[in-house]
Amino acid sequence: MAGAGTFTLLLALSASSLATTVINKYEDTKYEPTWESLDSRPLPAWYDEAKFGIFLHWGVYSVPSFGSEWFWAQWANKEKKYLDYMEKYYPKDFTYQEFAKDFTAEFFDPKQWADLFAKSGAKYVVLTSKHHEGYTLWPSKYAYSWNAKDIGPHRDLVGELAEAVRANNLTFGLYHSLLEWFHPLYLADKASNFETQEFVDNKILPEMQELVNAYKPDVVWSDGDWESPDTYWKATEFLAWLYNESPVKDTVVVNDRWGKDIPCKHGGFFTCTDRYNPGTLQEHKWENAMTVDMASWGYRREAKLSDYFNVLDLIQSLASTVSCGGNLLLNIGPTKDGTIVPIFEERLTQLGQWLDINGEAIYGTSPWTYQNDSMTWGVWYTKKDTAVYAIVLHWTWSENILELASPLELFQDASTTVTMLGNEDDGNLPWKLGDTVSITFPDKATAKSEWAWVLKIEAKATLPNVV
Amino acid sequence: MAGAGTFTLLLALSASSLATTVINKYEDTKYEPTWESLDSRPLPAWYDEAKFGIFLHWGVYSVPSFGSEWFWAQWANKEKKYLDYMEKYYPKDFTYQEFAKDFTAEFFDPKQWADLFAKSGAKYVVLTSKHHEGYTLWPSKYAYSWNAKDIGPHRDLVGELAEAVRANNLTFGLYHSLLEWFHPLYLADKASNFETQEFVDNKILPEMQELVNAYKPDVVWSDGDWESPDTYWKATEFLAWLYNESPVKDTVVVNDRWGKDIPCKHGGFFTCTDRYNPGTLQEHKWENAMTVDMASWGYRREAKLSDYFNVLDLIQSLASTVSCGGNLLLNIGPTKDGTIVPIFEERLTQLGQWLDINGEAIYGTSPWTYQNDSMTWGVWYTKKDTAVYAIVLHWTWSENILELASPLELFQDASTTVTMLGNEDDGNLPWKLGDTVSITFPDKATAKSEWAWVLKIEAKATLPNVV
Amino acid sequence: MAGAGTFTLLLALSASSLATTVINKYEDTKYEPTWESLDSRPLPAWYDEAKFGIFLHWGVYSVPSFGSEWFWAQWANKEKKYLDYMEKYYPKDFTYQEFAKDFTAEFFDPKQWADLFAKSGAKYVVLTSKHHEGYTLWPSKYAYSWNAKDIGPHRDLVGELAEAVRANNLTFGLYHSLLEWFHPLYLADKASNFETQEFVDNKILPEMQELVNAYKPDVVWSDGDWESPDTYWKATEFLAWLYNESPVKDTVVVNDRWGKDIPCKHGGFFTCTDRYNPGTLQEHKWENAMTVDMASWGYRREAKLSDYFNVLDLIQSLASTVSCGGNLLLNIGPTKDGTIVPIFEERLTQLGQWLDINGEAIYGTSPWTYQNDSMTWGVWYTKKDTAVYAIVLHWTWSENILELASPLELFQDASTTVTMLGNEDDGNLPWKLGDTVSITFPDKATAKSEWAWVLKIEAKATLPNVV
Amino acid sequence: MAGAGTFTLLLALSASSLATTVINKYEDTKYEPTWESLDSRPLPAWYDEAKFGIFLHWGVYSVPSFGSEWFWAQWANKEKKYLDYMEKYYPKDFTYQEFAKDFTAEFFDPKQWADLFAKSGAKYVVLTSKHHEGYTLWPSKYAYSWNAKDIGPHRDLVGELAEAVRANNLTFGLYHSLLEWFHPLYLADKASNFETQEFVDNKILPEMQELVNAYKPDVVWSDGDWESPDTYWKATEFLAWLYNESPVKDTVVVNDRWGKDIPCKHGGFFTCTDRYNPGTLQEHKWENAMTVDMASWGYRREAKLSDYFNVLDLIQSLASTVSCGGNLLLNIGPTKDGTIVPIFEERLTQLGQWLDINGEAIYGTSPWTYQNDSMTWGVWYTKKDTAVYAIVLHWTWSENILELASPLELFQDASTTVTMLGNEDDGNLPWKLGDTVSITFPDKATAKSEWAWVLKIEAKATLPNVV
Repeated sequence: MAGAGTFTLLLALSASSLATTVINKYEDTKYEPTWESLDSRPLPAWYDEAKFGIFLHWGVYSVPSFGSEWFWAQWANKEKKYLDYMEKYYPKDFTYQEFAKDFTAEFFDPKQWADLFAKSGAKYVVLTSKHHEGYTLWPSKYAYSWNAKDIGPHRDLVGELAEAVRANNLTFGLYHSLLEWFHPLYLADKASNFETQEFVDNKILPEMQELVNAYKPDVVWSDGDWESPDTYWKATEFLAWLYNESPVKDTVVVNDRWGKDIPCKHGGFFTCTDRYNPGTLQEHKWENAMTVDMASWGYRREAKLSDYFNVLDLIQSLASTVSCGGNLLLNIGPTKDGTIVPIFEERLTQLGQWLDINGEAIYGTSPWTYQNDSMTWGVWYTKKDTAVYAIVLHWTWSENILELASPLELFQDASTTVTMLGNEDDGNLPWKLGDTVSITFPDKATAKSEWAWVLKIEAKATLPNVV
Repeated sequence: MAGAGTFTLLLALSASSLATTVINKYEDTKYEPTWESLDSRPLPAWYDEAKFGIFLHWGVYSVPSFGSEWFWAQWANKEKKYLDYMEKYYPKDFTYQEFAKDFTAEFFDPKQWADLFAKSGAKYVVLTSKHHEGYTLWPSKYAYSWNAKDIGPHRDLVGELAEAVRANNLTFGLYHSLLEWFHPLYLADKASNFETQEFVDNKILPEMQELVNAYKPDVVWSDGDWESPDTYWKATEFLAWLYNESPVKDTVVVNDRWGKDIPCKHGGFFTCTDRYNPGTLQEHKWENAMTVDMASWGYRREAKLSDYFNVLDLIQSLASTVSCGGNLLLNIGPTKDGTIVPIFEERLTQLGQWLDINGEAIYGTSPWTYQNDSMTWGVWYTKKDTAVYAIVLHWTWSENILELASPLELFQDASTTVTMLGNEDDGNLPWKLGDTVSITFPDKATAKSEWAWVLKIEAKATLPNVV
Repeated sequence: MAGAGTFTLLLALSASSLATTVINKYEDTKYEPTWESLDSRPLPAWYDEAKFGIFLHWGVYSVPSFGSEWFWAQWANKEKKYLDYMEKYYPKDFTYQEFAKDFTAEFFDPKQWADLFAKSGAKYVVLTSKHHEGYTLWPSKYAYSWNAKDIGPHRDLVGELAEAVRANNLTFGLYHSLLEWFHPLYLADKASNFETQEFVDNKILPEMQELVNAYKPDVVWSDGDWESPDTYWKATEFLAWLYNESPVKDTVVVNDRWGKDIPCKHGGFFTCTDRYNPGTLQEHKWENAMTVDMASWGYRREAKLSDYFNVLDLIQSLASTVSCGGNLLLNIGPTKDGTIVPIFEERLTQLGQWLDINGEAIYGTSPWTYQNDSMTWGVWYTKKDTAVYAIVLHWTWSENILELASPLELFQDASTTVTMLGNEDDGNLPWKLGDTVSITFPDKATAKSEWAWVLKIEAKATLPNVV
Repeated sequence: MAGAGTFTLLLALSASSLATTVINKYEDTKYEPTWESLDSRPLPAWYDEAKFGIFLHWGVYSVPSFGSEWFWAQWANKEKKYLDYMEKYYPKDFTYQEFAKDFTAEFFDPKQWADLFAKSGAKYVVLTSKHHEGYTLWPSKYAYSWNAKDIGPHRDLVGELAEAVRANNLTFGLYHSLLEWFHPLYLADKASNFETQEFVDNKILPEMQELVNAYKPDVVWSDGDWESPDTYWKATEFLAWLYNESPVKDTVVVNDRWGKDIPCKHGGFFTCTDRYNPGTLQEHKWENAMTVDMASWGYRREAKLSDYFNVLDLIQSLASTVSCGGNLLLNIGPTKDGTIVPIFEERLTQLGQWLDINGEAIYGTSPWTYQNDSMTWGVWYTKKDTAVYAIVLHWTWSENILELASPLELFQDASTTVTMLGNEDDGNLPWKLGDTVSITFPDKATAKSEWAWVLKIEAKATLPNVV
């Protein structure tokens, strides 16, 4: 097993075992701690099939719950809005750490959350085990007195949610921030231009191993990597351990945030930037992490209705993402009280209603030859088996003919059928081929789906280059 | 009788003005402090025309924000749910008063609230100036150290909201609880079987005068009357002052909660019981006070989406209420932070969207001969000028003919027209008279309104006994 | 005049008892509500005999516990020291009322306190039932939510201390502030130049009656009178009730702070100004209210040892006060935690040690012809029966002869004896009469008393004009 | 052995400097990481000369300030007193960490403290940099969010006090606890029977190096060693670094608490057990660490006067300790507010007054042939140069002859003189040799010292075996 990686991981142990470990290590190895080797690992299949996950940003920032989950950094950076807020409502020398005791999670009912996630149609859930603030939602040995057991909720939030999520047959994953804005060991390493690695050796690597060993997350969603190279983070060593030896070595997926210049280049699925949604087919599996609140990942008490995407916006994100080969990881921020506010519950429930009818066009699909229609705006394609799905987002019902330009080949044979998901009992929809294919929509009053409609196109004859 | 009552009311004023005041008063007086006289006062017209108001329950109960605004009483009453909550999260001897300092109202922006109320289509706003807990949202001289200026928000919440609401041309009113569950003077009076009235003389009457003089509310929405007779509360004396001398004597409306056995019998508009919606035409002007959260008037942090009425429920309440001669006073509970949460914002915004199109069938209307259709469920009638409005709540669009049995007389002449509000440009809807009148609905795709639709029936010819 | 005052006092009672009460009252009446009549009441004898009492300043100011018990007024008055403190440690809009919840009194053990008071040699104890802040240490019906039961200790501090003090055979008294700096009713009366009296009628008089009826204090120590005349306070009406009808009418003593220009002129014992110690014999019984902490009556966390009087200072105050006909009311400030800090315990214990030996020269004594010696500084006289006591405060032991110039007449006969209290077994001290009388002090090593020594002079022969 | 230890210590440094450091190190080395070598280091002279230091226990336990500084452990251990207290005043799941934010140190004025320490006659000051709770009074990189900068005082308490103490020419030292009761890494090591050392490598050693490098303490007062062997703590490796390489290598003294079975055997001065005062001469330099509060090292709000030693008790401890070759480290507990309460100020000031007169018999002295007198109880001896000092603790002044049995040899020659410290101007005291030596005490009235008196015996002739 990878020498360098092991070495780092073992730094916390006594040096005396070093020689032996190095020797044993290569006997078991499948992956080397190099990007070349690590990138060669196939992505476990469950991930691509899942398409839709829920992202949860929850932490001490849920206490001020103002501005965004970057509250601390922005306040420290003396941004006026945050300075004003703190000046108005808090004592002069109040510290961010002193918010933690009000992170009560009084109403946190993991089963209730997990039921909602299941109802939303999501197939996996990713929780921020630790954000840039450094506070861990589990009782980490490496965050004594700065974790959810010691101060605030007095509970193992990670463990409780993991259990409930899995009981609902959803996959459980964990977000983890490498950097901690104000951790003094990190700041010392940073001051050395990352030539020292005390923070990584003393804190990050042992903590990540503890996390993986304790909660066996099937997603390790890394973040906070951008200030220093992957070599500082000993990322390849960690991943070699994760892929070769960890309890989730066969099922885990990771993202690409493992050091400066690594995102969009190496790792598991690519996230590139926040809210990444390229709109074109990507060669590498990717994920669109975006959030219902346009302005924040953490819950903001001051958010207005207009700050939230509505369900159509969310369906549009899901459709365009999946069409281009991505997964959608849709974020909501729970409150410090441990609740998911009803407006989020409504959005997720609506998505679930839509997926109940239209999930066939999402789960387990692949991108098709074309991603969106070349003529009609707001039509996105996926495919599965012999079907191509056209997800129609902006149908105004003001006329009853939908013109499509991309799937002409599918309509070369008259046996091709078009049905609307949810309305299959109403039979096939009439179509006519010309310069485009013109499909007659059913009457609005009969449509079972709301917000967006999916046409399932099946070419019964074997056509060249089709699906 | 009048003398004694008046005397008490004037205790709050300087003794030197006593003689003069008494003299002037009787010169202007129209109303005696008797129900017979007070009930003879016509209700100021604005109220019946307004039809729809917003009710706000906000107070120290917004801090625990759990169970309901009756938190204190239920906890004191040792209801398990509340005892458990307090035992789990608070010190043993914690008192309700100690919640007050966390009633921060940090984000309270009265203009933003008032904009939302205007957008909702409401014409008046009624705020709980003081609920049964006794805490006043204004800096009352009679609630020293137990008001929003002294502890908690450090602001005059009543004054700030009054100004913002009026700036939006909405009418401002105030809820006020007569009883205070745990006020020691009240408890002493109660222990005397209400033979002593120290609480009323020392606290309630001066406080109500202060409130009316300071904020000039056009609604005085009394509550908390039920344990003792109106004579204990000196209700008629207060109302005589309100109608004869107060700064709002010409515009104010009051409700009917002025003492045991008074509701539904005396006062201004009748509220009878909470969520009163009789479903039949009432002789006396009445109001349906109901709340978006089915289980609480105050904001509950633990509320689920399923605890909230959806917009169609709310339109149904509005339509049935107005059809039967009532006003709808729709309640939402702001948070201790001073926000109206987005789910409430959404409900109110949706109501506003509906009223933008269909308000003609609500504002300034009167009940018609029939309230709801005798054959088709979910159709409610109102009238204004020469039109009768049929508010159709449960149209399923599965067929395109609406059968109505009640308005047959209106269709005796062929010149009678039917249009759909919002779709007037599409011209008249075809109708046919048989045992019922059959009206052809437009296509769903063309309907401008969502959730419920209003048919405007205009009998152009002069028909006997019509509208 | 009497009628109006009485009427107001009875407002707090049930109106039904009005006629009867008024009638009964005048049957029993001895005192009219005039100063002439009230001043004619003899002071109950227990008070003059007691000589030494403990004063306790305890309230919400014990929470900031900084500067002095006038914290609120000085902060409101924008004194830099208080502004700085609040700016440094509290949120911007923090209010004084919000301190109250930290007034926990966790360790308050009234028996322990009472034992200490007994041990100190004090004969009575006076507690601030309410200071200028308005917060009542008992659950007053007139201070709802601003009293020790509702917020803070959750206990009846007055009642608990009263019981413990009396169990130790000490007399219990109560301080009460008439004015409340920031009570809005008081401020309104003040704004009217005290022409209105709503604060007095609505709050102060009922509250004082409640206090006297509930706790039967034998001292009513009034304060906060200075901004308005006694007629505003209805002081004479209150005192007439107190002397004629109250449960303590036969035993209660009051002070002189009953309105502008009243102190040092009317009432019971005179307190004149804080720390009043005139140094000469007074015609009227008076009291020296002073405090161990030179700078504050309430406990100050920041106090230094040098801010506290030492035991000799306190004995000096006691001796000079008693010699001139006064009582000493020695103040200490308990902490918000409910403790009396050890430094105060030490001072009181030392006083008790001194009084154990020398109390004969204090309790039950009268002023003598001379108060302090005309030649030797620091010698104060008292008398009882046939003895004159010379309290010697500043004996340096550098020589062994004390020269006294005032008591020459006592030494005209050779049978006059001089003993030292505590050293009576050692026999009489030699003396010699010349221009002065020269008394030989015993050896320091044999003296039983510490800090100050008392010589008891007994003229056995009947001498003219002696004792 | 040396290598491994060094290696661990250097983990905190960048790996790149490893080789160089190792090389340089052995050039300078004097001490090996073995007890044999370490114990051979002579104790820096300043320590034995100083005799008297101040010990300060200050930390988060100063917030509950109840019971003792072991509050957390005793509460966790379910001792009834602590459980009752927490149940009564705190929420059910409250954690110890949540006390930290109330450790305000608002009034902490290091200069004021240092002035008091100087005034007390102490020559050094030892502050608890970290107690068993793990909270550091300095902003340690190894105690992120659990230190005085991040939560509570928001200040570097160690740094501020160090500066002020040194400005008063006192020596500054630091107490440091090895174990942390509830640190999860410690608990994990403990669960392994201390076979793993993650806590020591990851936390304790880097932290101690950081502490020494940053504050250069001249005392490293180790504690919390008792559960595991010195090898677990890598104590000898740390001490070798401290003696060979640290910035205080030439001046630092340490105690003996470096692992199970080490105290009283190895290290610098011996402390053996708390309040160690053997009463007989010890071969090895030792220290009596005791505390003014008999029941606690940390400040207890509930302490009574009777819980505190008085000044005579303290002088007795000092005299007996110094006579037997020890130093006295006298502890007081500051408050969470940052004050030293006046009762402690008084005790320290009294000690200073005594030492002003009698310090000659303490500072820079050595034990004499005899420690306490063989006949008269309460007489302790020290010597310096040609003088022997007899510290007389319990002189009752009831007779004027002091009989001593131990110093007979000193009085073999008539030229031997006896004076009383502070009373040297009064000349020599008469003495007479018989079976004992009888020394005539001066008159009490002339003695300059209070509480205890020192006789200085000078044998002017050269006598055999004397001083």
